[in-house]
Amino acid sequence: MAAEKGIILLDFWVSPFGQRCRIALAEKGIEYEYREENLADKSPLLLKSNPIYKKIPVLIHDGKPICESLIIVQYIDEVWSQNAKLVPEDAYARSQARFWADFIDKKIYDCGTRLWKLKGEGQEEAKKEFIDILKTLEKELGDKKFFNGDTFGYVDIALVPFTAWFYTYETSANFSAEKEVPKLVEWGKRCMERESVAKSLHDPKKVYEFVCMLKKKFGIE
Amino acid sequence: MAAEKGIILLDFWVSPFGQRCRIALAEKGIEYEYREENLADKSPLLLKSNPIYKKIPVLIHDGKPICESLIIVQYIDEVWSQNAKLVPEDAYARSQARFWADFIDKKIYDCGTRLWKLKGEGQEEAKKEFIDILKTLEKELGDKKFFNGDTFGYVDIALVPFTAWFYTYETSANFSAEKEVPKLVEWGKRCMERESVAKSLHDPKKVYEFVCMLKKKFGIE
Repeated sequence: MAAEKGIILLDFWVSPFGQRCRIALAEKGIEYEYREENLADKSPLLLKSNPIYKKIPVLIHDGKPICESLIIVQYIDEVWSQNAKLVPEDAYARSQARFWADFIDKKIYDCGTRLWKLKGEGQEEAKKEFIDILKTLEKELGDKKFFNGDTFGYVDIALVPFTAWFYTYETSANFSAEKEVPKLVEWGKRCMERESVAKSLHDPKKVYEFVCMLKKKFGIE
Repeated sequence: MAAEKGIILLDFWVSPFGQRCRIALAEKGIEYEYREENLADKSPLLLKSNPIYKKIPVLIHDGKPICESLIIVQYIDEVWSQNAKLVPEDAYARSQARFWADFIDKKIYDCGTRLWKLKGEGQEEAKKEFIDILKTLEKELGDKKFFNGDTFGYVDIALVPFTAWFYTYETSANFSAEKEVPKLVEWGKRCMERESVAKSLHDPKKVYEFVCMLKKKFGIE
């Protein structure tokens, strides 16, 4: 039983950050208890486990909380190291994987949010910036199957949840990822062939509905 | 000879991010070639080595560049692993060290910059936020000698360069770190007893002069 093993993931279904953790846990074949949080009324366990940011995802392992999705993914990789490694074993390759995961962390979510929150000039600026970010990532991917080569891993996990948001980004800001970064879109499809990814992401249309609901809540037309 | 070993650090004297790398290299006893960059006229090597951010520090090891200070410190720790470890060996302790180093990265520099760039209400807000950040860090330090316990390591390296900026922050925004976070100030002094730290940081008055020069350049009174 997952509960007996003491692995709990505090999460929210549409969160790309939470999805990173779900993918990593699935890649390692770890059973765990998934607890959906109500972000409008966070559980005492979430507030106690992440007093600094009060955010999901939080992984609780034998009563001890780990926060921040990329730190959680690294933790999962290091603790359940018997399965295929997600972070490269070579120190230089590892530094490069960390660089790109960090780049994704710094850029995608913030710029992507501006795509659906802003209108007019602000949105146009965000669109230009977002396409630049995607092109930078496509260039780094090159002709490789996954970011680290033939093996699905850390950088793929950092980025792939956002592909379920592409439809929302494209529809909001009027561009085509397929047209701008065809190789990156192909990579996303390749990732979706993995069960770990397919079962962690949601239908892009459901993500869009969620964002429409958020926009209503924020009073954005 | 450092050059033969092929370890080059592209850096700028007052950078707390560069200083992290210098401290880590000194802790490991690694000889390297220090190259001071002119940030107003960056070297072709810097632009080529960090095409994404075009920022120092960059560590070049056998011709291969590593960017982003916390990633560089982890790389140094992993490659020269024969010396005392900087990042904790235990996976949970490691996840917590990464959490706090990331917290420092996200909070201190940005908020500290607002302390000397802004005036009036903006500065007051930044001051309140900055003192909160320091208190959070002091609470995490608790009664420990260093952030990870008895051993100087990753989180100490992430934070200690900013102590040389405290005088600038205090003078700009009119507060006393000594009064607000006495234990954290004591910790800073403890770190400065280490040769690796003492030789990497600069006189707080020199940092202040540098910031005054920056303010003039930006047209801030």
